[in-house]
Amino acid sequence: MDKVPIGLNFFIPMPVVLVGTQVNGKNNFMTVGFCARANANPPMILCGIGNNHYTPKGIAKTKTFSVNIPSSDLLEKTDYCGLVSGEKTDKSHVFDVFYGLLKTAPMIKECPVNLECKLIQTVPLPTNTLFIGEIVGAYADGRVLKDGKPDFAKIDPLFLTMPDNRYWTLGKYAGDAWSAGKNLIQ
Amino acid sequence: MDKVPIGLNFFIPMPVVLVGTQVNGKNNFMTVGFCARANANPPMILCGIGNNHYTPKGIAKTKTFSVNIPSSDLLEKTDYCGLVSGEKTDKSHVFDVFYGLLKTAPMIKECPVNLECKLIQTVPLPTNTLFIGEIVGAYADGRVLKDGKPDFAKIDPLFLTMPDNRYWTLGKYAGDAWSAGKNLIQ
Repeated sequence: MDKVPIGLNFFIPMPVVLVGTQVNGKNNFMTVGFCARANANPPMILCGIGNNHYTPKGIAKTKTFSVNIPSSDLLEKTDYCGLVSGEKTDKSHVFDVFYGLLKTAPMIKECPVNLECKLIQTVPLPTNTLFIGEIVGAYADGRVLKDGKPDFAKIDPLFLTMPDNRYWTLGKYAGDAWSAGKNLIQ
Repeated sequence: MDKVPIGLNFFIPMPVVLVGTQVNGKNNFMTVGFCARANANPPMILCGIGNNHYTPKGIAKTKTFSVNIPSSDLLEKTDYCGLVSGEKTDKSHVFDVFYGLLKTAPMIKECPVNLECKLIQTVPLPTNTLFIGEIVGAYADGRVLKDGKPDFAKIDPLFLTMPDNRYWTLGKYAGDAWSAGKNLIQ
């Protein structure tokens, strides 16, 4: 096993989401790769967003945001929302939106899964801030459900890797969690 | 577009990592799905870990931990580390380890990429705590590098989806980030 030091700036593979906000009265969408579940119960999700971005201004004001999962067929629009800032470009017409309980967290109709979140906590870090939100509403297109549950093969999510700056699709089913390792229990 | 309310407990697809710690003088490995980059510069990564787990005891003591990326051929061992707690089961012999700068952050030789992290901040939430660490060392197997950069197809990482509790591989290259959406810029 030859271990080689690599650059410290390694990124684990990132699920790609679109964060929806209202900033200065307009809907805005931002592509985010620093996103993970934060808490199991109640369900919370976090987004790490650069401090110089436009989206944080909206979250600070409305204390709400949405997290939308784009399918791979939305790759172009998803990348576009990461290329241009809402500060200079009106992205409010890139997607059709709908609302759930929160009237300031626009959700993207074209994305197969949508979460509306109430801001719980912000964690300021040197170049980014973590926005931790409680999931207060979750929605999916009927076509991506199987027995009432989200089917990830149908959701067809995107991943981002860096520093090679590539998008990837979800691969094959590889095994069952909390099951595949049972043979190793003594 | 028929949007259907789904359970609030939706999880975006999660990159699977193994967190290495020393707890009560023994190496321990835990499977973690709540993991993301937290800060761009300096590079920081975060892990959300259940408050009743064994791993937090080690991080609290040593202020260090490692993040290791298992390939899909380590699926069984990876799942095993999520099935049994270090509190009751000695997992120190499941993997071979090596050390970098930090002598209390055991890294897993069998994993193609390894990050050693110094604890920067903890964020307590109701059922989980976020452990935010600065990446102070990063290592990879020579075989997964291409032109000196990590090649994610060779790393062959795993993803976890819930609530269907399935592991998945990385799929196909789908496009270039900060590029694929350029056609939409007016």
